[in-house]
Amino acid sequence: MKTYRLSIGNVERDLPYIDVSTNSGIPFVELLGDVELTNAVADELMKLIPQGTDLLFTVATSGVPLGHALSERLGIPYRVARKRRRTYMRDPLIQEVASMTLGVSETLWLDRRHAEFIAGKRVAIVTDVVVSGATMLSLARLVERAGGTVNGYYAGFVQGQPSIDIKAVQQLPVTPQSTL
Amino acid sequence: MKTYRLSIGNVERDLPYIDVSTNSGIPFVELLGDVELTNAVADELMKLIPQGTDLLFTVATSGVPLGHALSERLGIPYRVARKRRRTYMRDPLIQEVASMTLGVSETLWLDRRHAEFIAGKRVAIVTDVVVSGATMLSLARLVERAGGTVNGYYAGFVQGQPSIDIKAVQQLPVTPQSTL
Repeated sequence: MKTYRLSIGNVERDLPYIDVSTNSGIPFVELLGDVELTNAVADELMKLIPQGTDLLFTVATSGVPLGHALSERLGIPYRVARKRRRTYMRDPLIQEVASMTLGVSETLWLDRRHAEFIAGKRVAIVTDVVVSGATMLSLARLVERAGGTVNGYYAGFVQGQPSIDIKAVQQLPVTPQSTL
Repeated sequence: MKTYRLSIGNVERDLPYIDVSTNSGIPFVELLGDVELTNAVADELMKLIPQGTDLLFTVATSGVPLGHALSERLGIPYRVARKRRRTYMRDPLIQEVASMTLGVSETLWLDRRHAEFIAGKRVAIVTDVVVSGATMLSLARLVERAGGTVNGYYAGFVQGQPSIDIKAVQQLPVTPQSTL
């Protein structure tokens, strides 16, 4: 099986390819369960987040380790939008994701307590991997609806050509299936 | 609204109560988005995990920050069971959770790559909050099915009387609704 050699700081990983369509594949990068890689990405990504940012906002589950590691490094809090309603949520904000790549519609949930925390803050939208940018745009919409201001989009990795301007640590290739 | 004062190391939080049944409430503790509290819990919980543990195993999403922080402190890896099938999973292990408290059945998913990583390892089952212990038992079953050995159960917080022996940083009260 062909793999993609990823290097971030001193950390190297050989990533397997996964299918994104019938004729292309992308290297599959997973921060969940990988402290070393998460911290290496956070060390680089923190340099891209502007001073004056009050809060990091990411999405469950894959964005959580990076949110935690960035929050620790920058000394600012992070909050997490959920993909399922949790029983403890009271009066949550609900936001659809207009996803092209997933082929299924997703919904983001933000508990009212967290929405109130976002109000008035300058918020950096953060995720581990961006493909279309649709999830990031939905996170941004949640920030605006909660009364916060979006202070840019930041990702560990970008694959393909997202529709928005994203500052990322690395661009990963989309590779024709025939060459894998 | 009545709250519960939580103290872990130097960190204090006033937790809201949430309903767990028509006649009792529990303090709602959330590590997600709270680096300070996550790290304080990890600092205490790491002392309870025995030497010779090869791997930490937790569950998405709420267990992720604690898994990350413990992995960092102990210098051993962590892995995460998912609550939804992800498109990239190949031949996953699937495990039902026999949950009493949630009132809905849940399913845990573990990608084959991670199951293979668990094989032959001594694995500490870790979660943030335990109520019935049903999720922990399902995590343990996944470990055994993957060919690993369960090396105990560890949690930030225990609420109520779980059916298994769990080492936890703190016991949280279950409070009669009438007193809230």
